[in-house]
Amino acid sequence: MENAIYAQSGGVTSVINSSAYGMMSEFIKLSPESEVYASQNGILGLLENRIYEIKKCKKPLKLLIESPGGMFGSCRFKVPELDDKNFYRKLFKKLSKKSIRYFFYNGGNDSADTCLKISEAAKLLNYTLNAVAIPKTIDNDLAVTDNCPGFGSVAKYIATSVREAALDLKSMSKTSTKIFILEVMGRHAGWIAAAAELANKSNETHVHKILLPEVPLDEERFLKSVKNDISRYGMSVIVVSEGLKNKDGEFYSKSKLFDSFGHSQLGGVAPKIAQLINNTLSLKCHWSVADYLQRSARHLTSRTDLEQAIAVGQSAARLALNGRTGVMPVIERTSNNPYRWKIKEAKLIDIANKEKTVPKNFIAKDGFGVSSKAIEYLLPLIQGEIFPEFENGVPKYEQLDLHLSN
Amino acid sequence: MENAIYAQSGGVTSVINSSAYGMMSEFIKLSPESEVYASQNGILGLLENRIYEIKKCKKPLKLLIESPGGMFGSCRFKVPELDDKNFYRKLFKKLSKKSIRYFFYNGGNDSADTCLKISEAAKLLNYTLNAVAIPKTIDNDLAVTDNCPGFGSVAKYIATSVREAALDLKSMSKTSTKIFILEVMGRHAGWIAAAAELANKSNETHVHKILLPEVPLDEERFLKSVKNDISRYGMSVIVVSEGLKNKDGEFYSKSKLFDSFGHSQLGGVAPKIAQLINNTLSLKCHWSVADYLQRSARHLTSRTDLEQAIAVGQSAARLALNGRTGVMPVIERTSNNPYRWKIKEAKLIDIANKEKTVPKNFIAKDGFGVSSKAIEYLLPLIQGEIFPEFENGVPKYEQLDLHLSN
Repeated sequence: MENAIYAQSGGVTSVINSSAYGMMSEFIKLSPESEVYASQNGILGLLENRIYEIKKCKKPLKLLIESPGGMFGSCRFKVPELDDKNFYRKLFKKLSKKSIRYFFYNGGNDSADTCLKISEAAKLLNYTLNAVAIPKTIDNDLAVTDNCPGFGSVAKYIATSVREAALDLKSMSKTSTKIFILEVMGRHAGWIAAAAELANKSNETHVHKILLPEVPLDEERFLKSVKNDISRYGMSVIVVSEGLKNKDGEFYSKSKLFDSFGHSQLGGVAPKIAQLINNTLSLKCHWSVADYLQRSARHLTSRTDLEQAIAVGQSAARLALNGRTGVMPVIERTSNNPYRWKIKEAKLIDIANKEKTVPKNFIAKDGFGVSSKAIEYLLPLIQGEIFPEFENGVPKYEQLDLHLSN
Repeated sequence: MENAIYAQSGGVTSVINSSAYGMMSEFIKLSPESEVYASQNGILGLLENRIYEIKKCKKPLKLLIESPGGMFGSCRFKVPELDDKNFYRKLFKKLSKKSIRYFFYNGGNDSADTCLKISEAAKLLNYTLNAVAIPKTIDNDLAVTDNCPGFGSVAKYIATSVREAALDLKSMSKTSTKIFILEVMGRHAGWIAAAAELANKSNETHVHKILLPEVPLDEERFLKSVKNDISRYGMSVIVVSEGLKNKDGEFYSKSKLFDSFGHSQLGGVAPKIAQLINNTLSLKCHWSVADYLQRSARHLTSRTDLEQAIAVGQSAARLALNGRTGVMPVIERTSNNPYRWKIKEAKLIDIANKEKTVPKNFIAKDGFGVSSKAIEYLLPLIQGEIFPEFENGVPKYEQLDLHLSN
């Protein structure tokens, strides 16, 4: 009997559970006799004997498609380098005990690195294992793939929310608030902020400024441009990446907190921009920090994103069962209009620890917005709605009945 | 010919335009020969000759139901006391020129005061006018009425968003972030924060702490209680009103900005709570400030709220045409289970400048949540969905083709 284990790692998305559904349902279809396990909190559950027996769930696996967050718990945990053989020996012993020969790790570039190391270590230590990573990240910063499951839904959430907030501001700007600032996620890559452009219509401007981490903030030029917005529109809607940098390349909003990968934890650039505008232009500002709201908004999930999330999960199951290891199924765009895509195989070595930022030709000439090329790329990713079931006025988000394995 | 004018005032909501639709469509039905005007930016448009001729719109008025924000523009503007007769003479001259005998003001308690003054001044200066206020405020702080159109939708947005964010936090809390703080609107009344309780299920706690402006923060007791959450749930989700106060009755997050009514502009209590927890308990926090997002989220509007918003608009038209002035149609709850309501008439003198805060028996004994009585009151208000039309992946929110009157 050759069994499979699935785990979630890094920041979660509104469709990471859809990838779990894709992988599990496809694996069960193709290898109906095998056990399918899910590790609680990424690889930690495996190390600490907290793994779920998926086939024991009485509720339908389809519930996974309805719920945001990571149903099995995620983790931020860096596995050691390959020379720490004891770590990997212990890991493979755990896997061996459950006859696990298929390992699925659902995450971003840190997680791709984890999966690659496990794949390599298995070869080194002669443990037969097919380790396949499943892409997931709201940041859309994975190399090779056209886009990352999770991103399209955040893009849809941000475009929708900022169009709504802009209509609000428009009502108020005559006699009161003239500036609205929305802070979105994105440490080094400005994809989420870029997606705010999708709030604009050809004949209605809802977003006036987009501040990307790729473009260091020139305060003077920025303030001049905001003043122009006020003259022209009577208001300015500004969307800013948490990772916005100053001219010296430092984060515009610094913080002393760090996550367990050593990345500094950000947040609070919106109030800093508000302060800057208020101090210099004396304009009343409102600001919002979307934080977790943007990446867990299953009620606004992009149907395209959800379908791709399921597809990469399904493909991962097939790849592993076909004997592939150290790989990741990724999305290839075969046509833009009409939008068409397919899943192809990529090597983890080409993805792990790499970061794809917004390219220069996607950024507007003045640095405060995005180009038509960016819109062409982004627009297909937010298409379609797939609302969750509501119960008592709020989304139901029913959880699976999970059973820990002995 | 006796014509009508409608205007929007104060902070907008996701259903204020639905009240405009109710008032206008009912007035046109009952008095088909009359003109219906809308003043741009509240009463300012009337004073400055910027009023729209509604019957000139070629697009259907039903579009109003689909769009958040104030379609005609709102304002924050305080009318003078009655002894400033020149102001009111000028105002009535403007109204007289257009044969306007029906005045509708859609707003909160400041706007009720404006409408009351105009009604009184008309009597004093012998200008025949029926001035009727239409209730609107996300804060739910109007006296007399069971609830305020606009509130139910924010309540639904907050309950949904915090349930989503809590599922996200649950995934992360094992190895990373253990605290999520959501800052919501509410200067003096904690109704919006209270609604976060609706994110909880009988068998699933998603919100652990609710901090209301009605309960001054006792930092020590609060931190102890958060520590308990960590022991019990491994995490703590905290929803805090922008108007939270410290033990001395001062705003927990102070700001030097003031709006034109002299209310201090708040924002930023979430990062302060995060700092407090981080400094004392050394727990990683994420925080979000919902700001405009919560009150403009037409994509998550409560169907009950929208129906009530239309109903108060319709009733206002009927009241005015029946010769009533200085009044407001309000909502009366006639049954809780099943939820039933009707519209009744209230005097503006009982509403203007009054503020209804969360009563003591709605607040949990420990002060960090709400009682079952509050849930019983709140739950019906968020029932039902009414999604907007989507176009290109985002809500369409088509605007009316508005024509200014000469």
